[in-house]
Amino acid sequence: MRAVVRRGPSLVVDTLAAPEPAAGQVLVKTLAGGICGSDLHAVHHMEQMVELGARSGQPGLIDPARDIVFGHEFCAELLDHGPGTDRRLKAGTRVVAMPVAPTPQGFETIGYSNRFPGGFAEAMVLTEALLLEVPNGLSDVQAALTEPFAVGEHAVAESDAGPDTVNLVVGCGPVGLAVIAALKARGLGPVIASDFSPARRRIAAAFGADEVIDPRENNPHTRWGALGVPVSRTERSVLAMSGKTGKRALVFECVGVPGVIQGLIEGVPVGTQVVVVGVCMQTDAIEPFLAINKSIELKFVLGYTPDEFAATLRHIAEGTIDVAPAVTGEVGLDAVADAFAALGGPENHCKIVVRPNGR
Amino acid sequence: MRAVVRRGPSLVVDTLAAPEPAAGQVLVKTLAGGICGSDLHAVHHMEQMVELGARSGQPGLIDPARDIVFGHEFCAELLDHGPGTDRRLKAGTRVVAMPVAPTPQGFETIGYSNRFPGGFAEAMVLTEALLLEVPNGLSDVQAALTEPFAVGEHAVAESDAGPDTVNLVVGCGPVGLAVIAALKARGLGPVIASDFSPARRRIAAAFGADEVIDPRENNPHTRWGALGVPVSRTERSVLAMSGKTGKRALVFECVGVPGVIQGLIEGVPVGTQVVVVGVCMQTDAIEPFLAINKSIELKFVLGYTPDEFAATLRHIAEGTIDVAPAVTGEVGLDAVADAFAALGGPENHCKIVVRPNGR
Repeated sequence: MRAVVRRGPSLVVDTLAAPEPAAGQVLVKTLAGGICGSDLHAVHHMEQMVELGARSGQPGLIDPARDIVFGHEFCAELLDHGPGTDRRLKAGTRVVAMPVAPTPQGFETIGYSNRFPGGFAEAMVLTEALLLEVPNGLSDVQAALTEPFAVGEHAVAESDAGPDTVNLVVGCGPVGLAVIAALKARGLGPVIASDFSPARRRIAAAFGADEVIDPRENNPHTRWGALGVPVSRTERSVLAMSGKTGKRALVFECVGVPGVIQGLIEGVPVGTQVVVVGVCMQTDAIEPFLAINKSIELKFVLGYTPDEFAATLRHIAEGTIDVAPAVTGEVGLDAVADAFAALGGPENHCKIVVRPNGR
Repeated sequence: MRAVVRRGPSLVVDTLAAPEPAAGQVLVKTLAGGICGSDLHAVHHMEQMVELGARSGQPGLIDPARDIVFGHEFCAELLDHGPGTDRRLKAGTRVVAMPVAPTPQGFETIGYSNRFPGGFAEAMVLTEALLLEVPNGLSDVQAALTEPFAVGEHAVAESDAGPDTVNLVVGCGPVGLAVIAALKARGLGPVIASDFSPARRRIAAAFGADEVIDPRENNPHTRWGALGVPVSRTERSVLAMSGKTGKRALVFECVGVPGVIQGLIEGVPVGTQVVVVGVCMQTDAIEPFLAINKSIELKFVLGYTPDEFAATLRHIAEGTIDVAPAVTGEVGLDAVADAFAALGGPENHCKIVVRPNGR
C-alpha cells in the first residue's frame, strides 16, 4: 500500500506492505485522515515525544529510528475481519474509532506506532471492539474529525463549565475550536475566543463563539469584572456579604507554547479554573506564589473517554457540531509533506484532511 | 505597648502607641501569637511579598519601608469595645479571629499591615464581627493555632479527599501537619507523610500520619501501585474493563520551594490531584507535557473560609485535633528575633508561640 512515512525527520511517500489484522482486529481502507498539530511537532521531535512519554509512564513501544505512519484522526471503510472477531459490522461499513490498539505488550496509539500505521496510508488495521459506524449522510471528512473534536468534549467534561461560568478560550486552532464547539453543544456561554490570527478568529466565530477578540487589541483579562466575575478576594467577600457569588471565570489554554500558562496565572481573576489542553513540549516557568494568592486551579487534560468519543460522533452526525468551518484543505498522499509545511501558518490553514485513496 | 517591630529587614523590640479600636473594632490583650513560615520570609522579603501581592490583585496597602508588627495567628483577651460595636462578648473573654480587618480602603491582614499590629505586640485591635470565643479548657497557645490549622482544613476541603484516596503529604512543617490533622479529623487514610527531617517525621506521626517516610530512603512514588492506585493509563484501562477504578492518588505539596511541583509532576501516577499549599515565592519550572500526559491537576489554595476557621477551633477544643505536638517553644517579645533564627532549622523547632504579656 502507499503511505506517507515519517523516516528520520522527513516525510516520504513509499510503498509498504499492507498491515494484517491480528486477533480482534479488522483491516480497513482509509477514507480520510486529519493532520494534527502534534503530527507537525512529531516529524521533527519524535525522539523527544518518546522520551517524555516514557517519563510519564507510557511504555516505550515506539522506535523513532524506524518508520512511522502518522494519522490518528480517521474515517475508514471496513474491508476484512481478522481472526477472533465477532463481525458485528459488515465489510463496506464506514467507521471511526479511537486510535488505540491494545496488544500483549501494552496499548499502542495508531498513528504513533511502528506496528500500526495511521491514516496517512491506504489501509490500516483497527481494533474491532472500538469501531463506531458512521451514520448515513456524514461525510468521510466530517467523520474523521470526531477524534480532534472529542478532545474538546473531554476538556469541557473535565472542567467546571456550567451556567455560571464565563468561558475564555485562548487559542483558536483545532483544539480551541473543539472546546468552543463542545461548550456551545451544551448550550453554555458566553464563550469568548481569543487568537492573534484573523483567520482563526473568523473560524471561531463560525463555531459559535459569542465574542472573538484579538488579544493585541482587547486584553481579555481587563474585562472579567464587566462580565460579572468578581476579580479580587475583596470583591468576592463583598458579594458574599449580600449572599451572592457572581460568575466564575473558566479558561481553556489551547495554545501550548511556553509563557501562556504564566500569562494566565497573572491575568485571570481569583478562583479561576484554567484547563490546559494545548500541548506545550518545552519546559515552562510559573510563579507559584501568584497562583496560590489567586487560588488558581491548573487542570491538565488529555484525550477522551470512549463515551466522549461516541458523543462527539453523535454531535457531528446530528449537526449539533458543524465541523466544516475547520476544514481548510484536502490533499492526497503526495501533497502531505506540503500540507505539513502549509499548516505552519495560521492564516493559511486550520485542519487539512488527507485522502489516501482519493475522494 | 511593647512590640516586636519589623523595621527594614530587622526585628527590633520597641514601644509603640497602643492601637485604638475604630468603628466595629475591639481592643484586645495578646495572649499568644504563633510564628508562621511566611513571617520568616517576610522579614527579609516584604518588598517582594508586596509586589507579588499587587500583581495578584491585592490592593497595595502595605508600605515595607514603615513599621510592621507580624503575628497573624493569635489568641487574645477582650479588653475594650470600640464605637459601633454590638458588645456580644464581654471584656475578659478569650477570643481568636481570622486576621482580617475590613476598612474603607480595602481588606487589611492583621500582622501584615502598617496600621494593624499583629500578635507580636502586647495589644491589637480586631474586627468584632470575626471574634470567636475560646471554649473553656483550651489553652491560649492551643487556641492561637486555630489559624495555621485552618489552612490544613481548607486545603483538605478544597481537595478531592475521600474514602478512595491515598493521601501523600509532602513536607511536615506546620502546613503539612495541619493537612495531616485535617485528613485524620475526617477519618481519612491512609495518610503518608514525607519529610527529610527526623524531628518533623516524629511530629507527623504524633499527628496521626499512618506512615512517615524519609524520601531519601523511601521514594513515595515507587509505592502507589502497592497502595492500590493504578499508575498508568493502561492499568486504569485494564481495571476499567472489569468495572473497577482502584484508589486515587492525592498529594498535598506543603514545602513551597522551587522544584517540588515538577518533582511531583514527574513522580505521581496518572490522574493525580496535587493540592499546592506550600508557598513558593520564587519562579519555578514545570514540564507541561508531562502534566498533560498524566492528566494532573494542580490546585493552588490559600487561607480558609470563616466556616473552616470556626470548624478548626471546634476540632481543637473537642480534642479531635491535638495541636500540642507542633508547639516546640514559647518565648517572650525579647526572644522573638532569636526564635525566628531558630526556626530556620527543622530539627530544632516546628511552631514557636510568642507570649507578649508573659504566661
